[in-house]
Amino acid sequence: MILVVKSGGESALPEWRAHFAECAPDLELRWWDDPSLDPAAVDFVLVWDPDPGRLARMPKLRAIFGSGAGVDGIVADPDLPRHIPLVRCVPPEATQRMGEFVTWAVLSLVKDARRMAIAQSRGVWDYFEAPFAAAERTVGVMGLGAMGLRSVEMLRALGIPVIGWSRTRKDVPGVETFAGADERDAFLARCDILVCLLPATEETRGLLDAPLFSRLPHGAGLVQVGRGVQQVVPDILTALDSGQLSGVMLDVFDPEPLAADSPLWSHPRVTVTPHVASLPSRRERARYVADCIARLGRGEPLPNVYDPERGY
Amino acid sequence: MILVVKSGGESALPEWRAHFAECAPDLELRWWDDPSLDPAAVDFVLVWDPDPGRLARMPKLRAIFGSGAGVDGIVADPDLPRHIPLVRCVPPEATQRMGEFVTWAVLSLVKDARRMAIAQSRGVWDYFEAPFAAAERTVGVMGLGAMGLRSVEMLRALGIPVIGWSRTRKDVPGVETFAGADERDAFLARCDILVCLLPATEETRGLLDAPLFSRLPHGAGLVQVGRGVQQVVPDILTALDSGQLSGVMLDVFDPEPLAADSPLWSHPRVTVTPHVASLPSRRERARYVADCIARLGRGEPLPNVYDPERGY
Ligand SMILES: NC(=O)c1ccc[n+]([C@@H]2O[C@H](COP(=O)([O-])OP(=O)(O)OC[C@H]3O[C@@H](n4cnc5c(N)ncnc54)[C@H](OP(=O)(O)O)[C@@H]3O)[C@@H](O)[C@H]2O)c1
Ligand SMILES: NC(=O)c1ccc[n+]([C@@H]2O[C@H](COP(=O)([O-])OP(=O)(O)OC[C@H]3O[C@@H](n4cnc5c(N)ncnc54)[C@H](OP(=O)(O)O)[C@@H]3O)[C@@H](O)[C@H]2O)c1
Repeated sequence: MILVVKSGGESALPEWRAHFAECAPDLELRWWDDPSLDPAAVDFVLVWDPDPGRLARMPKLRAIFGSGAGVDGIVADPDLPRHIPLVRCVPPEATQRMGEFVTWAVLSLVKDARRMAIAQSRGVWDYFEAPFAAAERTVGVMGLGAMGLRSVEMLRALGIPVIGWSRTRKDVPGVETFAGADERDAFLARCDILVCLLPATEETRGLLDAPLFSRLPHGAGLVQVGRGVQQVVPDILTALDSGQLSGVMLDVFDPEPLAADSPLWSHPRVTVTPHVASLPSRRERARYVADCIARLGRGEPLPNVYDPERGY
Repeated sequence: MILVVKSGGESALPEWRAHFAECAPDLELRWWDDPSLDPAAVDFVLVWDPDPGRLARMPKLRAIFGSGAGVDGIVADPDLPRHIPLVRCVPPEATQRMGEFVTWAVLSLVKDARRMAIAQSRGVWDYFEAPFAAAERTVGVMGLGAMGLRSVEMLRALGIPVIGWSRTRKDVPGVETFAGADERDAFLARCDILVCLLPATEETRGLLDAPLFSRLPHGAGLVQVGRGVQQVVPDILTALDSGQLSGVMLDVFDPEPLAADSPLWSHPRVTVTPHVASLPSRRERARYVADCIARLGRGEPLPNVYDPERGY
């Protein structure tokens, strides 16, 4: 069986090979742009952003594995063969890493780590008192999927009050939850810090805009770890200027990499991180894909399959 | 009853007054350097770093309240009246804030937040993959007192393996503990990240030095939130150069503020924070002191009393 890989650049292929050799020794790994590759021989693909049209020319393809939890880079292919299962990569390490990142980002806002980093870069002892402990702030998580739920759990474990919002109603112990467009504003009104863990869909495009920010308590914080297309950057800057937002952590951008001339880089209340929130190790991702291939072999259902109806 | 205050500067006095008015309305608050103050009339003192000799000239003094959890700035007074109870300020908010800070610092090392901050300051998209999730690293906490125990609890709640070390043996659920000088090296050998939450005493002075670092696994991280006199800065820099330490978070220094020409400020693997790890709000500290004064009035024992024998 042949697995074609396009993730991490061609230089990552030897590492992928080494990991798959351990967990799926019968699998033959080939690079996406290997000129000798016969598309008709490909069984599986592991990919982040396929060149449009290429997947449609692989007639034997049995599953497409995204190399991350968000598969918008794959769904963007207009010729994507939609009858083939598209599996989001969500091994346990991915949700753990996301929970850790969200926790770090929330604490960074509460402690004002950006102010401390700026002071350090200037060599200035800038003593100040953070007005609140994180346990005195309510964190609202938009998106209660695999990533959101683990993040909620970890924030709660630190003693931080958490509320959540999703499309369909969720029952999460110790967490007040809100569902759908109707309950969105009631949810937002309670968020001292808003965390976005939504997938990129038609409905979530441009969601983080001025009208949404105006529903938050004055001086709220924002942690954006969903997808760059969801935020309206000029609206974020305006909300920071007016004090409606007090601080922002952005891990995702549109496009990526973030443009060198973006005002976000130098803004004193914006922390930019380069889309690092939750990439699990290649070893973990190889195991996850190998496990899925084994399930297919046994005729068992696959986990985390993209639903074209919902768009995520 | 008169409470004399020296904490946060004279400009903080109105805020202290407002908070005490709520929880101890009978208390008269006076500023430490008030020229009309009669030392013989002082019942209580709330202080961070008293001018040496001044406390000894207050004959009616019934308790000294430190304005933080560490009272080394008070004990440094050679004329400190040692028969009067010296109370460390440890309201619940202080341990919560410390746990949050330690969690933030540990996650900052694992995610390499310093590298991200430097990249942002240069406007560079520096994508990299953190080799580990925090849950794959063992964090060792030195000092299992009020601060250390809450930090241990919070790290554990995130799924991070934690071990601990203290002078006398402690029994902490889910945490392997080590005690005393004899077990120190066995403890250190297991710490991927070492957190120091020890008090400043004769025994802990200069503890964080080259011989200690050499006992850690190669590439360990260090979070220092104890006291500045505990670290040997040249040894930290040497250990970073050799790779024995991979990253350091320092919140405390000797002296403070950290000197403007210290090489720590600009070191790419050192994060400097200005002694902010765990100062609770003045409101919480006022309540804590008022509660202690009420206990004294009822003849009840005081919490967190400094022990001159142990030195902390
Ligand atoms: N920055 C990074 O490094 C990184 C890494 C991984 C993932 N991510 C992002 O995180 C996203 C979530 O990942 P996941 O694995 O948790 O996805 P998931 O399991 O599919 O969960 C998605 C959640 O979003 C909710 N949702 C979707 N559309 C909505 C809408 N229009 N209104 C309200 N709620 C809506 C869903 O509601 P229901 O529960 O009702 O379906 C669900 O709770 C990814 O799509 C990606 O954008 C970022
Ligand atoms: N950076 C900040 O903002 C900040 C804020 C608050 C506190 N702090 C620092 O944190 C320290 C701890 O505060 P705390 O309230 O947790 O103090 P604590 O309750 O007195 O606990 C001190 C701990 O250190 C242990 N210890 C003391 N000397 C030792 C030695 N020679 N060898 C091994 N272990 C030793 C004690 O062991 P036993 O349990 O056996 O007695 C105890 O577990 C403070 O003294 C201060 O230095 C810093």
